[in-house]
Amino acid sequence: MSAVDAKALHGLIQQLFERHGASDKVASTVARVLLEGDLLGHHTHGVKLAQGYLKDIRAGHARVDPAALETVRQTPVAAQYDANYLLGPYCVEHALAFAANAAKTFGIGIANIRRSHHIACLAAYLQPVTKHGLMPIIYTSDPAVASVAPFGGLDPVYTPNPLAIGIPTSQQPILIDVSMSNITNGLVNKTRAAGEQLEHATLLDNKGQLSRDPEAFFTDPPGSILPLGGLEFGHKGFALGTMVEALTAGLGGFGRRDQPEGWGAAVCVMVLDPEHFGGLQAFEGEMDHFVSRCRSSRERISGQPVRLPGHAGLARRERYLTEGIPLPADVLAAVRSAAADGGLDCPF
Amino acid sequence: MSAVDAKALHGLIQQLFERHGASDKVASTVARVLLEGDLLGHHTHGVKLAQGYLKDIRAGHARVDPAALETVRQTPVAAQYDANYLLGPYCVEHALAFAANAAKTFGIGIANIRRSHHIACLAAYLQPVTKHGLMPIIYTSDPAVASVAPFGGLDPVYTPNPLAIGIPTSQQPILIDVSMSNITNGLVNKTRAAGEQLEHATLLDNKGQLSRDPEAFFTDPPGSILPLGGLEFGHKGFALGTMVEALTAGLGGFGRRDQPEGWGAAVCVMVLDPEHFGGLQAFEGEMDHFVSRCRSSRERISGQPVRLPGHAGLARRERYLTEGIPLPADVLAAVRSAAADGGLDCPF
Repeated sequence: MSAVDAKALHGLIQQLFERHGASDKVASTVARVLLEGDLLGHHTHGVKLAQGYLKDIRAGHARVDPAALETVRQTPVAAQYDANYLLGPYCVEHALAFAANAAKTFGIGIANIRRSHHIACLAAYLQPVTKHGLMPIIYTSDPAVASVAPFGGLDPVYTPNPLAIGIPTSQQPILIDVSMSNITNGLVNKTRAAGEQLEHATLLDNKGQLSRDPEAFFTDPPGSILPLGGLEFGHKGFALGTMVEALTAGLGGFGRRDQPEGWGAAVCVMVLDPEHFGGLQAFEGEMDHFVSRCRSSRERISGQPVRLPGHAGLARRERYLTEGIPLPADVLAAVRSAAADGGLDCPF
Repeated sequence: MSAVDAKALHGLIQQLFERHGASDKVASTVARVLLEGDLLGHHTHGVKLAQGYLKDIRAGHARVDPAALETVRQTPVAAQYDANYLLGPYCVEHALAFAANAAKTFGIGIANIRRSHHIACLAAYLQPVTKHGLMPIIYTSDPAVASVAPFGGLDPVYTPNPLAIGIPTSQQPILIDVSMSNITNGLVNKTRAAGEQLEHATLLDNKGQLSRDPEAFFTDPPGSILPLGGLEFGHKGFALGTMVEALTAGLGGFGRRDQPEGWGAAVCVMVLDPEHFGGLQAFEGEMDHFVSRCRSSRERISGQPVRLPGHAGLARRERYLTEGIPLPADVLAAVRSAAADGGLDCPF
C-alpha cells in the first residue's frame, strides 16, 4: 500500500473521463463520487471502478452526454428519469438535486432512475446533502445481475439491493449504507480474487449447504448469497430486498422482466427536509440524544465501544485527506491500468 | 383454541370502544385494524391489544376524540401531526388517507405522527392502500421503551423499529411487516408467559452472552434483543433501526430525549403512486415477474417452496373469514376480560 494524494487522484480520474468525451461537469462528478468511496474506506466501490466505467464507454454501453438523461414524467415533487446508461454518479447527483429542491419547498422529493449505468458507493452521495440539514435516502438494485436467493430458495434471483440514508445531527452526520443481503457481490469477488475464505459462512452452495468458500458461488448452477438475517431470520432480509426491488425496478418500470444485459442500476432517491415536520433543531436534538445513548451503552467486547454507522468512515476520510489515501494494491493496479488505457501517465 | 366469527368479534371490539367514548368512526377503525392483525395471523398484535388500549383510555392516557389529532405543519405532500395519544389506528388511517391523496396528485405523500398511542399490527394497514394500486410504507418506534441494544453494546436503547410496505401486483399484493431486530418485544413476552425458551439464541444477557431464555431479558440491568443480523451482521440491523428512529422520532421532533412514559408510538407513513413514475401496469409487470422468479427458485428444504412476504397471511385471512379465527387461549382470555371490564357479555 502507498498513500495517494486525494487531489491528484481526483485530477487523474477526471481527466480520464474527459478524454473519453465527458463534459467537465460529468467527469468531475464521477471523479468526486468514486474518490469519496475510497475516502470513506469502501475500496471495492471507489476509483477501482473507473477502469470498468471507461471500458463501457469505449464499448458504447455507458454514455457520457448529460442529455442522455431523459425526464419521462415529472410533478413538483416526483420525477421519473430514463438515463439511457449515462454514467450513474451524474444521474444520482441530478436526481438528488431535484429531490432536495422539492424537499425544501414541500418537505419531500423523490426521483426514480431507470437504466442508469453503475452508481458506485451509495455513502459517497450523503454528506453533500446532510450538510444542508436534509435527509437523503438512496435505494438501488441491478436488474442485470442475480446473486441473492429468495429466503427458502436456492436459485439467485436478485441483487444485494442496498439502501443508504444520511442523518444530520448537530455534530457529524450518521451515514448508513447497507445491503439487504449478508454480504455483497463485491466482497465475494474480492475474496475469490485473493484466494481466501469468507469470514462467515453466508453463501449457500447450489445444494443449499452453508459455505465460506467464494468458489461455491461460481458453480453451475450457481450458489447464492443469503439475505440479511441468514438461515434463521432471512425472511426479513428477503422482505427488505423485495422492498428495494419495488422502489427501484418496480417503480421505474424497468427490471429483470426486461432482461437487460449491460452493467446498470435501477435507482430511487428521496430527500426529506425536517423543517417541514418537527423542525431541524428538534430533529438534531433527538438524534444527538440517540447517538449519545448508543455511545454510552456498555461495550459487549471490552475496548470496542459502540460506533454509529459512518463514523469510522468519516474519521478515515479526515485522515486520508491530509495523509493521503492508502490504496490497496488491486485498486492501484486498476488505476494504473485505466490511465495506460486512456493514454495518460499515472503519477502514482 | 376455538374459532371465532370475524364479524361478531369486530362488533364486540367496536362496541367496547364506543362504550369508552369513541365515536363510531374511531371505534370501527380501531376494531378493523385490531381484527385484521388476527386475520393475518399476528395474534400478539391483534384484538388482544384491546384490553390494554381500553385500560389506557380509562386511565386518561389514551384519547378517543379525533379532534385530539392536531396538524402541526402541512404542505400539499407532507404533514406533521401531534396525536396527543389518540388511539393509533385512527391516527395511522388518517395519515395514510392524507398521504394517498397527495400521492395521487404528486406521486408521493408523507405524514409523521408524534405522540400517537400504540398502532397495533403494521401489516393491517397495507391492503386497503394496495388495492388502489398505491404503495404504502409505514415506519414506527416507541420512544417510551428500550429493548434493543446498539450493535456492539449491552444496554438497550431503542425498540425493534419495524417497517411495513405494501406492494401491488396483478394478483395478490406483497405485504411486508418486519422489525429491524431479530425478534420483537411481543415474542419475548409471549415466550416468557408460556414458560418456554426462544427458538433461536438471539437475546444478549446483561453480560453479553447469547441466550434463548426470555428471563435473561428481564434482569437488572436488563438484557437486550439483538439487531437484525445478530452478532455477525448486526451492524446492518442497527443501521436500519437507526434509520427508522430518524424517520419517526427524529422527523417528528419527539422521542427518547423527551422521556415519554406512557404507551405510544412515533410514526412515519408514506404512500407512492406508480402512475407518476413508470406507470402502474409496468410496476405490476415487474413485480409479477419478480414473484414468479422467486417462486420458481429451487427449494432449499424439499416441500417448502419460497413464499413471498404476506402471502401466508393472506391465505390465512381468506380461511379465517369463512371458517372463523382460531384465537389462541391467551387472546380469547384477554377479549373476555376486556368485555367484562367494559360491562359487555362476551359471545365467545
